[in-house]
Amino acid sequence: MKKSLGAQTLVQPVPVWIIGTYDEAGRPNIMTAAWAGICCSQPPCVSVSLRKATYTYGNIVARKCFTVNVPSAEQAKAADYLGMVSGRDTDKFAGAGLTPVKSELVDAPWVREFPMVIECSLIHSLEIGLHTLFVGRIMDVKADEEVLDGQGHPDMERVSPVVYSPGARTYYRVGQLIGPAFSIGKDL
Amino acid sequence: MKKSLGAQTLVQPVPVWIIGTYDEAGRPNIMTAAWAGICCSQPPCVSVSLRKATYTYGNIVARKCFTVNVPSAEQAKAADYLGMVSGRDTDKFAGAGLTPVKSELVDAPWVREFPMVIECSLIHSLEIGLHTLFVGRIMDVKADEEVLDGQGHPDMERVSPVVYSPGARTYYRVGQLIGPAFSIGKDL
Repeated sequence: MKKSLGAQTLVQPVPVWIIGTYDEAGRPNIMTAAWAGICCSQPPCVSVSLRKATYTYGNIVARKCFTVNVPSAEQAKAADYLGMVSGRDTDKFAGAGLTPVKSELVDAPWVREFPMVIECSLIHSLEIGLHTLFVGRIMDVKADEEVLDGQGHPDMERVSPVVYSPGARTYYRVGQLIGPAFSIGKDL
Repeated sequence: MKKSLGAQTLVQPVPVWIIGTYDEAGRPNIMTAAWAGICCSQPPCVSVSLRKATYTYGNIVARKCFTVNVPSAEQAKAADYLGMVSGRDTDKFAGAGLTPVKSELVDAPWVREFPMVIECSLIHSLEIGLHTLFVGRIMDVKADEEVLDGQGHPDMERVSPVVYSPGARTYYRVGQLIGPAFSIGKDL
């Protein structure tokens, strides 16, 4: 029997990604976002939704670039911290013990210590309500060599990204392999 | 040392959600989508990006409604199947052994057997490229009572949603609890 929970942002799983930007003065900033996802294959794009009140919002509007950085489960404490303080009054890279790297492709910094980073150029902004959805065209993906599988793809178990549960507001690890896509459903 | 992987939709984790719609003749259809996420808190919204070639694309444009259904890891075979065949020539509910339920709130069906369902009304469409991003306002979330925690929130371990790894094209379970958000980062 299904129970109605009302009109809430309760859907699983959602990601825990760290958005990198430069502010007006050129200072690197990072914030945590979970209202985000891949949104187009050609051109390859990701979307990230942010409140206007965030420091990152103004940085993206001004610089038209951002990075999406994927922390591993071992870095979940840092990811949580980056969602609790503002770059307006804090050097969050220093606070989290992380290192900004200047992108050669976009006007935004990425995080050296995180296993995967995606460099994005802003191509659309959509005002929805409390959040504005930013669509970034993926200019490059960079990953630590240790997290790549035999085919050169990022391996989910080695990247070990963080999964967020809205409502309960908890972080989880990714667990066991179920199987290959476009394959396990062929029996049906 | 980071390796450049090029401009590809490689970012982790992304969800495996099943999109429910009615076609012109009123037949219920479901398809698998992974280019999706939460995109606004007020009003609560989810986004789903689809190729124009999909049967679901035309259904959403015509009916202006859809549902987002969250399969559990035990239902991953069905989820995979729903991404491999088209509703144009197949009754996918019957093929997957699933039951359509008519929503009382939106003009779209939801899946009885999946632990969580989200009923959405289309409020924005954004043409990006190969994919069009649809923003649905969440009208209600419904979940099986067995998957709710003591506070009435969907429990990630009980819902047991599927996580997708682009590139490697593999499905994973959600694993162990890391800890509470807005809390574990306070040490830093």
